[in-house]
Parts: sequence; structure tokens; C-alpha cells
Amino acid sequence: MAPIITLITDFGTADGCVGEMKGVLASRAPVATILDVTHDIAPHDVDGARLAVARVWRRFPAGTVHLVVVDPGVGSARAALAVESDRRYLVGPDNGVLSPALLVNSARAVVLPTPPNTAPTFHGRDLFAPAAAALAMGARVDDLGTPTSNAIVRRTPEARRRTDGAVAGEVIAVDRFGNAITNLMGLHGGTLHVNGAQLPIRRTYSDVPVGTPVAVVGSSGLIEIAVRDGDAAQTMGLTRGTAVSLRKPV
Amino acid sequence: MAPIITLITDFGTADGCVGEMKGVLASRAPVATILDVTHDIAPHDVDGARLAVARVWRRFPAGTVHLVVVDPGVGSARAALAVESDRRYLVGPDNGVLSPALLVNSARAVVLPTPPNTAPTFHGRDLFAPAAAALAMGARVDDLGTPTSNAIVRRTPEARRRTDGAVAGEVIAVDRFGNAITNLMGLHGGTLHVNGAQLPIRRTYSDVPVGTPVAVVGSSGLIEIAVRDGDAAQTMGLTRGTAVSLRKPV
Amino acid sequence: MAPIITLITDFGTADGCVGEMKGVLASRAPVATILDVTHDIAPHDVDGARLAVARVWRRFPAGTVHLVVVDPGVGSARAALAVESDRRYLVGPDNGVLSPALLVNSARAVVLPTPPNTAPTFHGRDLFAPAAAALAMGARVDDLGTPTSNAIVRRTPEARRRTDGAVAGEVIAVDRFGNAITNLMGLHGGTLHVNGAQLPIRRTYSDVPVGTPVAVVGSSGLIEIAVRDGDAAQTMGLTRGTAVSLRKPV
Repeated sequence: MAPIITLITDFGTADGCVGEMKGVLASRAPVATILDVTHDIAPHDVDGARLAVARVWRRFPAGTVHLVVVDPGVGSARAALAVESDRRYLVGPDNGVLSPALLVNSARAVVLPTPPNTAPTFHGRDLFAPAAAALAMGARVDDLGTPTSNAIVRRTPEARRRTDGAVAGEVIAVDRFGNAITNLMGLHGGTLHVNGAQLPIRRTYSDVPVGTPVAVVGSSGLIEIAVRDGDAAQTMGLTRGTAVSLRKPV
Repeated sequence: MAPIITLITDFGTADGCVGEMKGVLASRAPVATILDVTHDIAPHDVDGARLAVARVWRRFPAGTVHLVVVDPGVGSARAALAVESDRRYLVGPDNGVLSPALLVNSARAVVLPTPPNTAPTFHGRDLFAPAAAALAMGARVDDLGTPTSNAIVRRTPEARRRTDGAVAGEVIAVDRFGNAITNLMGLHGGTLHVNGAQLPIRRTYSDVPVGTPVAVVGSSGLIEIAVRDGDAAQTMGLTRGTAVSLRKPV
Repeated sequence: MAPIITLITDFGTADGCVGEMKGVLASRAPVATILDVTHDIAPHDVDGARLAVARVWRRFPAGTVHLVVVDPGVGSARAALAVESDRRYLVGPDNGVLSPALLVNSARAVVLPTPPNTAPTFHGRDLFAPAAAALAMGARVDDLGTPTSNAIVRRTPEARRRTDGAVAGEVIAVDRFGNAITNLMGLHGGTLHVNGAQLPIRRTYSDVPVGTPVAVVGSSGLIEIAVRDGDAAQTMGLTRGTAVSLRKPV
């Protein structure tokens, strides 16, 4: 099968920068299939990129290369990485965006050298895309750089158990529908407390009447806060960082 | 030829959800070509999705699979459908988004069962994408579910002839340029009345001076209201539902 | 290798219009690979499209077809063009969007006839996409139309040397990060003057402290104004057309 290269960036698509990267990929890895995952990560939002990587990296077939360019430190001393993890490859800056794959025990990371004539402001085009193309064409990560075990790993803020038995967490993302995703795993049910509301964990949005807030276990296994056919973030004042707590059923 | 799977969703692309669907498609239908049609249908806008489906479904080659996920009722009792119509396939919720293909007499629809471990909030990933992949790999709709003849069909609001001979209709969509698309077919010319303006039907935008309102027969055969090099919706106060009427030439 | 067709439009992706074009391409050039460059050029922004074309057209392999539809004059007397330049092909309206390829001495341009039943408001679907598909399938530009040497060329506003020795230019684009791209080539260093600020030319954004304005030579060789981890356009009041000047080092 043709190898796949996915793109995850914060470039937007109002200019030709994503196109420049695709041109490099198409020129250097002509057999690869190029697939957009997102170019609409908020500018410089490393955590948003990390969560997108977490969602997708293992959904694609073995051999897929994920090219992740959310890179506020471009041109600085931050390292450039290529990672092999669970038979997938990832390429991107060493700022935490590749964390989901680095957390796998068998993950292998190398530091990529900067090719000559690399534009200091566009490593996506001149450094990361060529590395992704090389991996799609069969190069091994060890062919591309120097092994490192110091890659930066960012974790989702950890939930913690309080003395009263509740688990305290926070909102880590708000999606396009106004659903707020928390860092609480939803394995055992319970009641979610957020901004004064108490929401039992239900199966899906339509388990409550239109306009009613509801907590559900989302598609990544995390508890989400929604308003059926409405916008929970706006209605309930939820943003990244809003505190939540889960009281388990007794 | 490689089968094509197109994607029509209201997910936006700011997170990894579209990517998760593409990962499922790439894993299960590795020979298929994945093409984005739109992920920017307004959230939960079933009518907007229906109009996008109407535009595209027959433009693609026979054998194409259209994956349509605009699904405010996800997880509820609404059925999930696979449709075969005029040698194309469509997969999506039974809420009207597949209407353009269902209106063909020979259309065949089946109700898809929900696979085990389906996330109740993400049928796009766990139910619809696997069905689309199966169709791209050669499955027949009857292999995938139970035939039904009760699929929901939504029609464009019908224009009606008034006692004074005019045909009354409404704006059904506003595009990015501020052009307002009506539900009136533009076969025979005439004058369009809208919000106090009277616009003869012209051939194209540039048939009037810059800044001037004009009615033309758009690329789908429907009458559109535009302002040359301007934004008709904003200038003339047009939104979905604005009443229009067409007086035929005498 | 499969020929590539790239798409550069101002259509947005909220409706099915881009999908209609892709359907035509997939039907007429089934072996071609379709790649999105951008659909988010600002509506009718011919200069923005021209700059995107400049960035990408030679980054793709020989044989690539670039389909460029930013076409405020659709349906008017403006010509439709197919261009062959440096072994790439471009198709689009004769309004300047294809200038970067036309400026090459050996470029060859033909005027495309309008096919029967072309919608006067959607040449992208009915005229340009079929021409792009034909080129991807091996047609030569001379097979498609009548040679012309009058194609419109728009140039980036020219920088000019002032009597005091400085080079005067302007901002020609603002990107998603708030970086302002000027029309000044950054070959020899110097100090950039803009809106009262004096910025020495540095290597990259991270050469200055967070929140500090900086001028760098961007990835296209043009001087850009940025604020590290900030939005220069907003902070410094920069828009397309803002005057800048470069004083060379002494």
C-alpha cells in the first residue's frame, strides 16, 4: 500500500504555506498519499496539537507518517524530532506535540539535523517535510538523526483525588459544538460538578431534553460537558482550565 | 480505478475528529481515495448538508461513496443509513441529509446496525466510516443492513404560484460571497422581487455595474441574488427564509 | 507517477462548490491526485491568490496542474487561460492570478474557449476544471485553446530607492500569525523602519525576547515584520499597503 503522510499544523489555509509543504512532500515522496488532518490548530497552541495527535496517531495504518508543525520556537535551539512508535512515524518540533507517541515505552526518537539553506522561519517546509518524505520512502528514523532520550513530553493535566473522595480535574478543550472535554476518565459513572451545576453521567446527548446540560463519556474516553442542541461552553461559561469534579456513585 | 470516498461533515477541522475518521477509512479501505468536500457545514445544519449533497453526489464517478455526518441526533433512536442510488453510495444519519439521493426512484436504503463498542457520541468514526469503507471495498448495501423504505426525505421548500400569477419562494442559502440562493428555478426569465427591489434575471454578475444588485440563474439552475463585486446578503438584508417572488415576462 | 492537480480558490468550504469541482476532476482525470492548496483566499482577492501561486507553483513536481479560481469577473469578457511554464501547467482566469508562471520567459499561454452549457457564474466547474483534467490526462496547452501573448501580468508593487539611499516598500500580506510580509528582498541586512519603529534584520523570531518586534527574512526571501509569540499586525497597526523602508547597513 502507498504510505500515508498526514498533516497537523496551525498554519491555517489562507495562504500558500501548507501548499509549499505539500509540494515538497509530493516531490520527494511521489508514491505517498497526503491527507490533511488539521491546519486549524489555534496559532502556537502546542496543547491543542498534542490532543489532536493523541486522537489520530494510532488510528492510521502501520507505516503512516504524521507531520506535526505547531512550532512557536521555530529557528531557536529547540530540537527537531523524528519518532518511531508502535509502527507509526511522527516528525515535529521537540516542544511536546509528539508526546502521545513518545509515552509508548518502545518509542524511539532522533534529533534531526537542520539541512543547509533551511529558512529559519519555515522548518515545516525545509526540515520536517523532507524528513517525513524520507520516512514515507522507507528511511528508518536512525538514518535521519541522532538518538535522544530527552524528548519533551507534555501530559494532560492530571486529575487528583480530593480528601472528600471526589476527583478534581479541569476542562482541557472546547470543540466546535461548544462541548467541553475534561481530563476525567469516565469509566464508572458518577456526578460531574462544574460551575455550580451537578450533572449525572449519561450515555449520549439525546438522553436529556433539548437545551439541557449533560455530561457524557466522549469518544476518547474522557468526560465531556454538553448542552443538547446547544453550546455548553457559552451557556455554562466553560473554557480551557475551568475546574470540574467527579463524585463517584455510592 | 480506486474507489473514492468523499467527506461532508459539520465537524470543522480545529481538532482531530476528521482525522480520526480518515484514519478509520485509510485502515479499512486502503485502496480508496479520500477527498474532502466540506467540514464547514454550520454545526447541526441538516439543511445546509442536504444542499451540499445535492450539489456533489452525482458529480463524482459511479462507485463513489459519500460519507455525510451532520448528526445532531447521534446516539438517539434515529436510524443510520446506507443508500445506493444511481450507482453512487451514501452513508449517514436518517435525518434528511441523504435526501437528494433518496429522491431517485431506484434508490435503495438499508438501516445499519450499531457495531459493538461504538462511542454513542461519535457514530461518524465508529459506525458510518466503517460502513463507507466496506462499500468502497466492494460490499453491497444489502450486505450491511436491513432494507427500509421509511427513510426521511427533506425537500427544498416548494415555490408556489400566487393568485396574481407570480411565483413565491424564499432564500434557502447564502454563500461566502454574500450571494443569496433561492428555491426558484430560473428557466424562463422574469423579474425577481425581494425586499422592495425588482431585479430582472440577467446572465451573470458582470452584466450590471459594480455595486449593483442583480438576479442570475446560478450554477445549480436556481435563481440567485448578487451584488456585483459586493455582498448582497449584507447590503439587501437577505438571510435563509427571506421571501422572494418571480414575475414572469409578459 | 500519477499527475497532480492542486486547487487554489476563494470559494471557502462551507458549501459544496469545491466538491463539485473535485467531482469533475475525479470523473475526467481518474488517475490524477487532487490536492488542496487553499480555498480560503479572501473573496475576490486576486493579489492574495497571486502570492499563493508564487509560493507553490514550482514546489510541485514537473507535470503538476495548478487550478486557480479567484475570479471576480466570471462570465464577463475576461479571457480564460491555460499556461505551460517550466514544465508545470496552470489554469485560471486572465486577471493576474497566474502572473508568477507567466513571468517566466518560456511561458506559453492559450485562451480557452467556453464549453457549451457552461454556467456563466461557475467557470471553475464547467470550464477551468475540465481544462485542468485534460492537461492532467496528457493534453498539451495548444490542444486546448488559441495562443495569446497578451495575458495580464500583475507584479508585486516594486520597491524603489529614495534620494536618501533608503529603499521604500510596503506590506503586501499579513499571515495568520499576524506577521506582515513586505515587498523588500532581504539579501543584505539593514534596519527596517515601519510606523515609527526601527527593527534590525534578525535571523528568526526567537532572536528577540517574547513580545518584542523583529524583522526577519521570511521563507520566500522577503522581509517580514513579526512580534515574538505575538501578533505584529495588530500590535503595530500593519495592514496591506502600510509603508516600510529599509536602510542598508553602513
